[in-house]
Amino acid sequence: MVFDGRSLLPDLDPKRITIATYCSHTSLQIFHGARKEGFRTLGICVGEPPRYFEGFPLGRPDEFLVLKDHADLFNHVEELRRRNVVLVPHGSFVEYLGANRFLDLPLVTFGNRNVLPWESDRGRSKQWLDKAGLQLPRHITDPRDIIEPVIVKYHGAKGGRGFFIARNYHEFKSRIDETKPYTIQEFVLGTRYYLHYFYSPLRGDAYRLSKGSLQFLGVDRRDETNIDEANRLGSIAELEAIGIKPTFVVSGNFPMVIRESLLPKVFRMGEGVVETSMPLFGGMIGPFCLETVVTDQLEFKVFEISARIVAGTNPYVGGSPYTEMIEPGLSTGRRIAQEIRLAAETGRLAEITS
Amino acid sequence: MVFDGRSLLPDLDPKRITIATYCSHTSLQIFHGARKEGFRTLGICVGEPPRYFEGFPLGRPDEFLVLKDHADLFNHVEELRRRNVVLVPHGSFVEYLGANRFLDLPLVTFGNRNVLPWESDRGRSKQWLDKAGLQLPRHITDPRDIIEPVIVKYHGAKGGRGFFIARNYHEFKSRIDETKPYTIQEFVLGTRYYLHYFYSPLRGDAYRLSKGSLQFLGVDRRDETNIDEANRLGSIAELEAIGIKPTFVVSGNFPMVIRESLLPKVFRMGEGVVETSMPLFGGMIGPFCLETVVTDQLEFKVFEISARIVAGTNPYVGGSPYTEMIEPGLSTGRRIAQEIRLAAETGRLAEITS
Amino acid sequence: MVFDGRSLLPDLDPKRITIATYCSHTSLQIFHGARKEGFRTLGICVGEPPRYFEGFPLGRPDEFLVLKDHADLFNHVEELRRRNVVLVPHGSFVEYLGANRFLDLPLVTFGNRNVLPWESDRGRSKQWLDKAGLQLPRHITDPRDIIEPVIVKYHGAKGGRGFFIARNYHEFKSRIDETKPYTIQEFVLGTRYYLHYFYSPLRGDAYRLSKGSLQFLGVDRRDETNIDEANRLGSIAELEAIGIKPTFVVSGNFPMVIRESLLPKVFRMGEGVVETSMPLFGGMIGPFCLETVVTDQLEFKVFEISARIVAGTNPYVGGSPYTEMIEPGLSTGRRIAQEIRLAAETGRLAEITS
Repeated sequence: MVFDGRSLLPDLDPKRITIATYCSHTSLQIFHGARKEGFRTLGICVGEPPRYFEGFPLGRPDEFLVLKDHADLFNHVEELRRRNVVLVPHGSFVEYLGANRFLDLPLVTFGNRNVLPWESDRGRSKQWLDKAGLQLPRHITDPRDIIEPVIVKYHGAKGGRGFFIARNYHEFKSRIDETKPYTIQEFVLGTRYYLHYFYSPLRGDAYRLSKGSLQFLGVDRRDETNIDEANRLGSIAELEAIGIKPTFVVSGNFPMVIRESLLPKVFRMGEGVVETSMPLFGGMIGPFCLETVVTDQLEFKVFEISARIVAGTNPYVGGSPYTEMIEPGLSTGRRIAQEIRLAAETGRLAEITS
Repeated sequence: MVFDGRSLLPDLDPKRITIATYCSHTSLQIFHGARKEGFRTLGICVGEPPRYFEGFPLGRPDEFLVLKDHADLFNHVEELRRRNVVLVPHGSFVEYLGANRFLDLPLVTFGNRNVLPWESDRGRSKQWLDKAGLQLPRHITDPRDIIEPVIVKYHGAKGGRGFFIARNYHEFKSRIDETKPYTIQEFVLGTRYYLHYFYSPLRGDAYRLSKGSLQFLGVDRRDETNIDEANRLGSIAELEAIGIKPTFVVSGNFPMVIRESLLPKVFRMGEGVVETSMPLFGGMIGPFCLETVVTDQLEFKVFEISARIVAGTNPYVGGSPYTEMIEPGLSTGRRIAQEIRLAAETGRLAEITS
Repeated sequence: MVFDGRSLLPDLDPKRITIATYCSHTSLQIFHGARKEGFRTLGICVGEPPRYFEGFPLGRPDEFLVLKDHADLFNHVEELRRRNVVLVPHGSFVEYLGANRFLDLPLVTFGNRNVLPWESDRGRSKQWLDKAGLQLPRHITDPRDIIEPVIVKYHGAKGGRGFFIARNYHEFKSRIDETKPYTIQEFVLGTRYYLHYFYSPLRGDAYRLSKGSLQFLGVDRRDETNIDEANRLGSIAELEAIGIKPTFVVSGNFPMVIRESLLPKVFRMGEGVVETSMPLFGGMIGPFCLETVVTDQLEFKVFEISARIVAGTNPYVGGSPYTEMIEPGLSTGRRIAQEIRLAAETGRLAEITS
């Protein structure tokens, strides 16, 4: 059973909300944005408060909750409720706590936690994105059908390791460890764009959907070690010949913009994802990211969706070229805080929490 | 005959100018800048108003003119004149309308439309840039003279397709389709810098030229699909071996800065281009872009000039590191609006329109 | 004997300081920052004042000192003292003047010039960085021990030339010019991050050290010609096969952010470098840069340290995503000016000059 944080709303004082998250990932941005909107902030951490916050007076939380380990969060639920906490989950939040624990967490949480099973299960996420009208990379079930480049992912591969690219069946055979389960996906050649959206069920002043409205807050390119600088040494094939395997571990992010003529598609994709999410699981809320490749036919292939704030928004703590045209200086972290503030002021917290 | 929009100036009310452009390319930036300078804005579009503007309240035009097709613009000329429109052309504007129609357009247009024949014809653009003292990639007339890498472009190749790179005569022979006309150009190895300038015939408060002055507003790197991420799969030669051709279709842009010690050359190149443009065709006006490669001898090779606002300025809707030292928050779109405003206020519109 | 600029402080009027540097490298940023903090500025140049400053009214110095050649600076020492100059050295400053002349320069200089011998000598810099707890690329003394990719640097190689990469002993042998002295270093495969710090001995309001405190102002990626776009033509091995050698000449810089979970390490590395610098040579002061590679194990390898402002801070003339959380709009150039102002106002110039 998924806990429903809205059951706790009667005891939450909407005038004294503290915004809390785990200290990592996008927490500087979340705290920075929350401060700008006038919230108190709380950093949850394990062991001891990370010292790097000392370096960022406008990004550090007002106070810390120090845990023994991530699961220890459950022992502090009463305290966090007393502090009027609204939790803002980020990518690492769910990863640290574990999906099941996150779903069970008896705290008011920003966003709809019911998105998690749809996002993390490849089958369901495919079903969702297909329904939304997005183009996904093809799946190949029989390796002998590999006639074009593919990316092979071992099940449970994490953090950019446990992937490999094969350009044909021969390469596949020479690289595969058949003892481990895997999936084979079309490798889509093109340029990668990580599209950052914000869906508000409360506001109707942006790109209007059947309920609420959609914003596009920016786009970045992930920087992945070692694949993104491997070319300084040799081609992937040349490196593999000397025993070096490419890896796809995210180490940073570059700001960028996308061709304006692609924006109609960008919005239609976001629209499809939000509209279909409503009947499927009650609807996504807040920030989400579509991880895409743009082919030379200027078509988007979507290889993943993240249904919360992602690290690719970190280049835009001070605003992006796109938020400049919405509200100068607006970050995704700040946009989250604005949504919580609006909901708190208008008695609509039940529409943006779970 | 090229239409001269200045003949319409007597009927234009300089206090009630509306800035108009086609909805695409850099239109968000143009409208955003025009709003900041207090102009009314008009978005020209085909079919129906693009909905993505809903997402950008500070970038959307005040109103739309909906056409049946691009050429339908000619049927709305009277209406646009009544609305006191000054058209701001961007790269796609000319492409959508067609060069000849653009030259004939009986509307007041920002910039000198007589630049178009000099910019779009390879022979004349070479003549212009040579005169300006710029270094261009060599042209090779006989394929048997290919002893270094070359880029081969089929005539009329558009949008980043119809190019190929050959490292020697053998590669050229194996790739060329001799039935189509083509040109062969030296492939310049180095890093690409797209330099964004603004030339004002009205203001003398920047880098001074014989008349008016020059600004450098920023630099970007184009992101081209699929060439710019092809290395994730293999080298170009490895990809071609499995039937994948590199393409050079622009899908986005990265912000960047150039080494300060190159700025003297950056300004001298811009200066040369503007000064020589005056006797050739009456002078360029407003924004232009030099598309360059910087070799490891820190020399610029210029492979193209664009004589209007280009999409590479879109990372800088909120300002660039360079405009920070001119006027914080200044974009190219806003700079255009400032020039129109200054001309309107001082009765000098004839100097910046055509 | 290293000149000690502090001996000149009794004659310096702390209320009328002029900030001066050579016109190049990061001088626009330094002047821009100094102006924002209310200082007069002086640009030192050879031959004639560079005209590119005309293009940047907020980045140009108030006046110029024109030299016959760089060493001519010594003939203007009296004049500069009369003008109450504090010199801000940047990377090219030291290169232009020569290390020995820089050490001898009888002027008040921002930062501790005693860092220079520790930074420029590979042996001493290794000793320093080892002590600081940083991981450096391994050195290989016997070429026959090359079993993994290495980078080979000829002594005195400058500006990104005179390096080569070899993936094995065979490649080493085919490329090496044995008549020139060289060093062999492990080639670390990963993604490059240039980390920009500022150490203040005066302020205790950031990441606290035993004395003073540390800030992290941003991170960039250098763009090097021709290596960083060579992949458009072929792999390094393919290019070498046709006689094209990769070069590593810096031509520009890209803004970026680093994964938040790496920030604890980022600060610990900076802390180690500053703390160990105190007993070694009296301590670094002001901006410094660690040039790192992040491996797919998310470990930093540090291949160089620069103990003054580097060109990688130029994308951030208007602030970085990190300084947004310190003080919006803060650049490294401005941070230097703030430190000088604080020292001047509190009578502590001796703690930040040499």
